[in-house]
Amino acid sequence: MESSRVNSHGPVHPGKLSHIPRLLTMSSFQPESTDAIAINTIRTLAVDIVSKSNSGHPGAPMGMAPVSHVLFSRFFKANPKNPKWFNRDRFVLSNGHACALQYTLLHLLGYNVTLDDLKNFRQLGSITPGHPEAGVTDGIEVTTGPLGQGVANAVGLAIAQAHFAASYNKEGFELINNHTYVFLGDGCLMEGVSGEASSLAGHLQLGNLIAIYDDNHISIDGDTNVAFTEDVAKRYEAYGWEVLVVENGDDDLAAIHDAIAKAQQSKDKPTLIKLRTTIGYGSKLQGTHGVHGAPLKPDDVANVKSKFGFNPEGKFVVPDEAKAAYAKIGERGAALEAEWEKLFASYKSQHPNDHAELCRRIAGELPQGWEQKLPVYKVGDPAIASRSLSEKVLQAISGTIVELVGGSADLTGSNLTRVKEAVDFQPPSTGLGAFSGRYIRYGVREHAMGAIMNGLAAYGGIIPFGGTFLNFVSYAAGAVRLSALSHHQVIWVATHDSIGLGEDGPTHQPVETAIHLRAIPNLAFWRPADGNECSAAYLVALKSKKTPSVLSLSRQNLPQLENSTIEHAVKGGYVLHEVEKEDLTIVSTGSEVAIAVEAASLLEKEGIKTRIVSLPCWEVFDSQPQEYRLSVLRSGAPILSVEAYVTTGWQKYSHEQFGLPAWGASGPYQKVYESFGLTGANIASLGKKTVEFYKKKGGEVISPLLKAF
Amino acid sequence: MESSRVNSHGPVHPGKLSHIPRLLTMSSFQPESTDAIAINTIRTLAVDIVSKSNSGHPGAPMGMAPVSHVLFSRFFKANPKNPKWFNRDRFVLSNGHACALQYTLLHLLGYNVTLDDLKNFRQLGSITPGHPEAGVTDGIEVTTGPLGQGVANAVGLAIAQAHFAASYNKEGFELINNHTYVFLGDGCLMEGVSGEASSLAGHLQLGNLIAIYDDNHISIDGDTNVAFTEDVAKRYEAYGWEVLVVENGDDDLAAIHDAIAKAQQSKDKPTLIKLRTTIGYGSKLQGTHGVHGAPLKPDDVANVKSKFGFNPEGKFVVPDEAKAAYAKIGERGAALEAEWEKLFASYKSQHPNDHAELCRRIAGELPQGWEQKLPVYKVGDPAIASRSLSEKVLQAISGTIVELVGGSADLTGSNLTRVKEAVDFQPPSTGLGAFSGRYIRYGVREHAMGAIMNGLAAYGGIIPFGGTFLNFVSYAAGAVRLSALSHHQVIWVATHDSIGLGEDGPTHQPVETAIHLRAIPNLAFWRPADGNECSAAYLVALKSKKTPSVLSLSRQNLPQLENSTIEHAVKGGYVLHEVEKEDLTIVSTGSEVAIAVEAASLLEKEGIKTRIVSLPCWEVFDSQPQEYRLSVLRSGAPILSVEAYVTTGWQKYSHEQFGLPAWGASGPYQKVYESFGLTGANIASLGKKTVEFYKKKGGEVISPLLKAF
Repeated sequence: MESSRVNSHGPVHPGKLSHIPRLLTMSSFQPESTDAIAINTIRTLAVDIVSKSNSGHPGAPMGMAPVSHVLFSRFFKANPKNPKWFNRDRFVLSNGHACALQYTLLHLLGYNVTLDDLKNFRQLGSITPGHPEAGVTDGIEVTTGPLGQGVANAVGLAIAQAHFAASYNKEGFELINNHTYVFLGDGCLMEGVSGEASSLAGHLQLGNLIAIYDDNHISIDGDTNVAFTEDVAKRYEAYGWEVLVVENGDDDLAAIHDAIAKAQQSKDKPTLIKLRTTIGYGSKLQGTHGVHGAPLKPDDVANVKSKFGFNPEGKFVVPDEAKAAYAKIGERGAALEAEWEKLFASYKSQHPNDHAELCRRIAGELPQGWEQKLPVYKVGDPAIASRSLSEKVLQAISGTIVELVGGSADLTGSNLTRVKEAVDFQPPSTGLGAFSGRYIRYGVREHAMGAIMNGLAAYGGIIPFGGTFLNFVSYAAGAVRLSALSHHQVIWVATHDSIGLGEDGPTHQPVETAIHLRAIPNLAFWRPADGNECSAAYLVALKSKKTPSVLSLSRQNLPQLENSTIEHAVKGGYVLHEVEKEDLTIVSTGSEVAIAVEAASLLEKEGIKTRIVSLPCWEVFDSQPQEYRLSVLRSGAPILSVEAYVTTGWQKYSHEQFGLPAWGASGPYQKVYESFGLTGANIASLGKKTVEFYKKKGGEVISPLLKAF
Repeated sequence: MESSRVNSHGPVHPGKLSHIPRLLTMSSFQPESTDAIAINTIRTLAVDIVSKSNSGHPGAPMGMAPVSHVLFSRFFKANPKNPKWFNRDRFVLSNGHACALQYTLLHLLGYNVTLDDLKNFRQLGSITPGHPEAGVTDGIEVTTGPLGQGVANAVGLAIAQAHFAASYNKEGFELINNHTYVFLGDGCLMEGVSGEASSLAGHLQLGNLIAIYDDNHISIDGDTNVAFTEDVAKRYEAYGWEVLVVENGDDDLAAIHDAIAKAQQSKDKPTLIKLRTTIGYGSKLQGTHGVHGAPLKPDDVANVKSKFGFNPEGKFVVPDEAKAAYAKIGERGAALEAEWEKLFASYKSQHPNDHAELCRRIAGELPQGWEQKLPVYKVGDPAIASRSLSEKVLQAISGTIVELVGGSADLTGSNLTRVKEAVDFQPPSTGLGAFSGRYIRYGVREHAMGAIMNGLAAYGGIIPFGGTFLNFVSYAAGAVRLSALSHHQVIWVATHDSIGLGEDGPTHQPVETAIHLRAIPNLAFWRPADGNECSAAYLVALKSKKTPSVLSLSRQNLPQLENSTIEHAVKGGYVLHEVEKEDLTIVSTGSEVAIAVEAASLLEKEGIKTRIVSLPCWEVFDSQPQEYRLSVLRSGAPILSVEAYVTTGWQKYSHEQFGLPAWGASGPYQKVYESFGLTGANIASLGKKTVEFYKKKGGEVISPLLKAF
């Protein structure tokens, strides 16, 4: 039998080649009598879900029902009853707005998603929110919806698989061999983050990654012809991907099947399956953006149901045949896991150490005693840039915490993220490293790095870190907020963290970035002032399994401060310099704490008793008991904040604020600091003004932390 | 003569094809005796600049000196003595770290950049900062350095040219026909934003755009082989670009020349010239990343000079021949402009209206009386979503303010950015619009949209606006901060601005975005509460020639408020509801102002006199005289802020804050608001607590705006 339906889009035929058929081996697809009803159940359920909630996206689920059914019925390895089985295949819905599809599949497959949950789609408190959220719904690996993210998450998941396979598989023990499947749409492909991640995935030869592109020619603005006419297949070939084309994704199950089967054979290239579908297949408005983002009209709902042989009046109907078919799939998954558990038990007896380590990693437990390795500093130790302090931490703990898998967005020598013994994570054929390597060369791709780190964290057993300049964490804002929302433990090594980077100038100086990151819920933004604070930042970041951290680190040297200790700093804020009956408290972070110390010493000489508070992490400080917080930022004297950023947000912790009026400047950093008044002398002078102002004002000075509710 | 040096990388030969030579017509390059000395002057000056400042990037300037010389000596049309000539060619250095090159060229060409300015490279207050900044240095069109931005800016500049040409050129008057040239490196190509912009540029068939890719195989992490092995040429072909390859960019001036000449002939495709160069050409470390980002060692500086026939001890030497050669180029530019001015004068006589309009646009003056068109509302008018209010403004003024050129990142129907009469900006051959069209279909490419808008603004005569959800402005953070730093007038129509978007859920709810944008210096973040405030936001945004604005707009309907007027709202904050001797002031923005009004009315019933302040734009409010600000947020009673975002930053304007504790939720918006306590009743209850707390505390309640310094 000749298949003209799956076309390999290989390098011999560029451009329009996707339309030239090519001989394939005979299709191995085995149709089943329940295929059609299962697919139509998916379609009608998705329609009902969106109609019931009166909100959502029916079009993509209707169009992608066939490929979903083929993927999950024929290929996908997972156990719905244990959605956390480590060697499960991972599925990512990058076009997350199509989540009615994903929830439907989870329900049919037997995950903990009931018919009632489907009826509660997009309702407050449901486990079926408007876009898929990791941690909310069993079987959802990553949070998607913001377009492009899922593709990059999938690259992270695939990297993780390759890394675990290379690190733990042994002869006779192909322990980790899962695939990562990702559905994506035109929107995902237009987003730069997916391009960044896909370029890297091609470079990394991630054969275990299979992306299925819902090529439905429709986006919100209508036909993709209005803005998106590039040759996607050719672009992905340029990235080094295998590209397959299925011309009829609406009906041709054999072609879909063969494409996925072929993709699984692509061992050193990720695969993009370009699947031509009809959005809203079955609707009167199929093939138009009318079915993209709004419920079908009631008569169209009835029409769809009739067309697919369902009772037009029925709602949320799962025919017994579909139920039975999916129950079988679930059983297959359970059996697969059971088989794997046997293998794993045998692995334990033959490779007890690897087994123990792998178990520890899967459980998300840090190795015993690792905290003892953290560098500790005392006053008089040399001044060191906090980016170098970070390097020392990584150097000290990387041998122990083997789950640290890090890299840099092409700033390795500046971020100091690569420890001496590091091996690059690279395809062995490049001769540049190995898949067991733990150092990822991300290239200049900050946004993808952020989203890939989310995928690495979501896989489990890995604590990802990534280096760039703090300023360029902004490029990755879309991914960073999803780390926090998804509770992914991800660590950003964000160096060159202020005007202290000096000559590179305002284009590289992150004056607004700190407050942006501090405002993200469940994100710990750390700005350590010295060595002990840097160790504390890592200590908390590594122990915070559900919270991403951004470590904001200096390019310039910072002195080791008196009274800074790891024990103090892990609280996020503490009294660095205590005096009784103070006239003033200066609160500061990072490189400005030493300036505050200088200011305090000048003020003391003038008889103004000055306390100093170091507040390296607002998020962590805010989580301390109120009593502690009030002991640090106490009533009785005015509090002045000092930081080399805009002052926005500091009003929460201080009465008066000093920072940058606007953008920074290009020049040697000492001169830049001077020009903005970030000197001991100027801070002392502002401190005096503050004290005088509050004296004049009279009355007790109340801590800004004391609130009405 | 056969040229085997410029290879067309056409669709017939994919993959490695860039290395297969192709016949070309005879080279039209006319060598000049001064070429070599001019190029070597550029190289040695760049070396001296970086050495003197002891900071910077010598490698790329040394490698790109030949192409720079060929471009500026043979092709580039500009008048150094009038860097604002409207029909000048635009040059963008997307790899902005190579700016020693750009400053050198500006100096040699006779722009207002002296040898002393070069000696002040990267020094405080110089006009030669660490990365090029628009507005700081004559001849710098856009701010670059953050990688990938310049490519997208260049797409904006090219769109602007095509738009002006289609709008104003007449038979016999090819008034606007400039090219846009952009240099870029591997880093720019790895960044997603450049991919987004390049895909769109290909779709738009921007033949006037010529990108020259410094293919030097080196990035900061070393050889690009570690992370960037995709086939760039093929990717750009996939985008619909013409791709040319110059194998020897170090020496082969004829090949460089022919490539640029050929690119100029590509009328309906942008061109990428892949130029193989040796980074740090001439240095002992040439071809390594050792020459990328640090000054050459003194002996290497001497070596470079000797190699290029310069005195090894000489510094900042411009040989007379080079001086003379560049003087001639400058004169050619002046002559070109003079010729163009004649043409323009004749255009005036034949097309006086177009001439007048074009002059007005070039001058950046808004048409007379446009403000009268702004919609005005009164209490009792229907409640309208502020995204619809924005649509009404656009509909009212677009016919008058023809320089408004807007679009959406594939959310047209949601952002409501397209007025009824709009014509799409599209290549005429698509049948979908015209280059004179003013509506840009950006596709799902928020970051590129932001950077392209910067290019549009930088071209002059255009006020760009772009629509997306407020949440996805974060994707464009890298471009947004550069709008503000560069003083580009850019308007974001950012709809679906809070948990009020409801069902889409927390992935789409921008809880931290407002404060991020408010913290960006020179950016006006507007959150209008009703129709008059929306008109006011547009009024100020359109008059602010040097400030970008983000208009944060609701999906849900908002009532027209009593006392809201355009005159009030243009101040950024005002008293919406005044009472004497108040017990409480509630300050709020956008959709929550109506909730504050409800709370105040409940409080009044309980005898708690409550003022209401609407504060739609902090940036603009902060620019009002202190006296005015203190009259709005006055001492005497506590101030409570209410907003459906995290409360970060509100402490600057209020004593107590209410907002979201963290992320939002998916559900019908009314229920989401309720669940977070954003109701009149709950705010009233918090207001009471606030009043009680401050009564108990005793003493005068001082305005939070009263500061010590």
